Amino acid sequence: MTETPHLTFDLEAPGVSTGHLVVPKGADCWALSLPVFNLNKGEGPRLLITGGCHGNELEGPIVARRLIEWLPEAQTCGRVIILPVLNPPAVQAWSRNTPIDGLNLNRVFPGRADGSVTERIADAVSRLLLPMADTVFDLHSGGPSWDLPPATTTHPIDDADLMAKTVKMAEAFKLPLTLVWEHSDTPGMFDTFAQGQGKVFICAEFGGGMVGSEALAIYEAGVRNGLVALGLVQGETDYPTFRRKKSSQTLETLASDKLKSPARGIFEPRCSVLDEVKQGDLIGILHQIESLSARSIDLRAPTTSIVCAIRSGLHVEGDEEVALLGRPLKR
Amino acid sequence: MTETPHLTFDLEAPGVSTGHLVVPKGADCWALSLPVFNLNKGEGPRLLITGGCHGNELEGPIVARRLIEWLPEAQTCGRVIILPVLNPPAVQAWSRNTPIDGLNLNRVFPGRADGSVTERIADAVSRLLLPMADTVFDLHSGGPSWDLPPATTTHPIDDADLMAKTVKMAEAFKLPLTLVWEHSDTPGMFDTFAQGQGKVFICAEFGGGMVGSEALAIYEAGVRNGLVALGLVQGETDYPTFRRKKSSQTLETLASDKLKSPARGIFEPRCSVLDEVKQGDLIGILHQIESLSARSIDLRAPTTSIVCAIRSGLHVEGDEEVALLGRPLKR
Repeated sequence: MTETPHLTFDLEAPGVSTGHLVVPKGADCWALSLPVFNLNKGEGPRLLITGGCHGNELEGPIVARRLIEWLPEAQTCGRVIILPVLNPPAVQAWSRNTPIDGLNLNRVFPGRADGSVTERIADAVSRLLLPMADTVFDLHSGGPSWDLPPATTTHPIDDADLMAKTVKMAEAFKLPLTLVWEHSDTPGMFDTFAQGQGKVFICAEFGGGMVGSEALAIYEAGVRNGLVALGLVQGETDYPTFRRKKSSQTLETLASDKLKSPARGIFEPRCSVLDEVKQGDLIGILHQIESLSARSIDLRAPTTSIVCAIRSGLHVEGDEEVALLGRPLKR
Repeated sequence: MTETPHLTFDLEAPGVSTGHLVVPKGADCWALSLPVFNLNKGEGPRLLITGGCHGNELEGPIVARRLIEWLPEAQTCGRVIILPVLNPPAVQAWSRNTPIDGLNLNRVFPGRADGSVTERIADAVSRLLLPMADTVFDLHSGGPSWDLPPATTTHPIDDADLMAKTVKMAEAFKLPLTLVWEHSDTPGMFDTFAQGQGKVFICAEFGGGMVGSEALAIYEAGVRNGLVALGLVQGETDYPTFRRKKSSQTLETLASDKLKSPARGIFEPRCSVLDEVKQGDLIGILHQIESLSARSIDLRAPTTSIVCAIRSGLHVEGDEEVALLGRPLKR
């Protein structure tokens, strides 16, 4: 086995091919073989679809598997590479971070060939798969402790042209929410690294909680809409039904829009995603669990806004984020 | 500090009183003080409500806090003791088992005074709170990786009279599902211990996944219905709306009704809770993540049945439970 990352098959072969992306062994673990699907129909858009970056967000890997069954009969041109599971050790452990080195794969891009396993995965993807694509769909989700509506997201991008192209692509998924998400912790993210190379990068942030059959159907419909908009597949696009509504909105949330817990305790959500709230409306309640005489603390909306994401009922620390509020994107 | 479990206040005082159940220190951790609410309105039913047995099932503690605010104006007779959080270390860690000793509190009853912290909690509850009640509502839920409809459950009980009383009480919650759940792993459960003393014990098994505002509203409505049926509170009961339906059914699931994964891989649910399935209908799909050429495995219903619970999409081991099927209870 060589000591550099490599693919076990030729991505230039026409038609469907499958094989593995081999991430070399290191001091901390054996080599990993990540299954890769490739469908090469010649000229056209070049798309990379990834799932399973965080091991407790399984919508992505499942929808990726469905696409692998569907694309051979649907794709009409271009190239689609699918890596359903970026981080198998995290998926097997159902943990956000890689259990072997404790790292968040979405904070170590472009990775290091001589780093720990998470960094070696990022390095292999950065070197061998990312250069083959102009567009990336990275299929995340809320994980078990955050509720989000089915959404596509991007962080703000300095390059105005790339930002406009990215928002347009994100909106083409026709999911209930397209979110421009200002984030203070972006170094090492897969999206910022790919955007630095001028690529359109769409991060899907669906669901949260149960990975159930209804959520998966909405998720898959959104990704199919994206494939149609990109021109890789022919067909009609439609707004998937979410909570009996067929509609979509584009919002932005700023770093200052994070609602944080004022103390440690159990957070009780009192509103749902996509609820419109006015200044002073109740978002949730913080219950201190050490005492029943300590009054619970109401968390209220600081301003008129729309709930983009809300924490599940669970124990939180003081100053931990419990909700993301937003408002229509100014263009 | 004494070395035996004790209450910091007198449960016989009339009206509302609050204080702590003190679980003595041991070699593994300091003494714990568990907040307790007590509302003593004299003659009448004697009810104990507990939540937070498993630390990643937070519906119970949150609904318990809501009841503590509501009962002082609503309760007309009898005694209600509420312990919102049985297992604070597990709740703080958002883990099913107690992180300190790795034990499942719902498998160590009646506990041991000289045991590890989980056993000491069970011992304190068994000695000091359980004897004060004839009925127990233990507020569990599905945790993040199982989906269940809002439900009350009981295991089969040998004593036919107690079984009938228990099912009647469980049905009085008017939740979408009342489930008689045959379970092979019952030693040390809180319910089997309490039932051995002739008490009516109702286990709520709600939701799964997100502890969100809608799930909490259904959960609270069910518990309020139970309080009305018990005669502690006056009022009307009603079927809470779940997925646009107001209805309820009583099912049983046998140990042999567990659908298990045939291999390790990612489980994709293909049906939802309360779906009626015929023999051969697709329940879910198992995707092996090591290879894209290995065919995914369809998991089908062995017989006509109703889906009582289904695993979230996540990585499972071979022979791990992925669904519970059931059918109408034979009486």
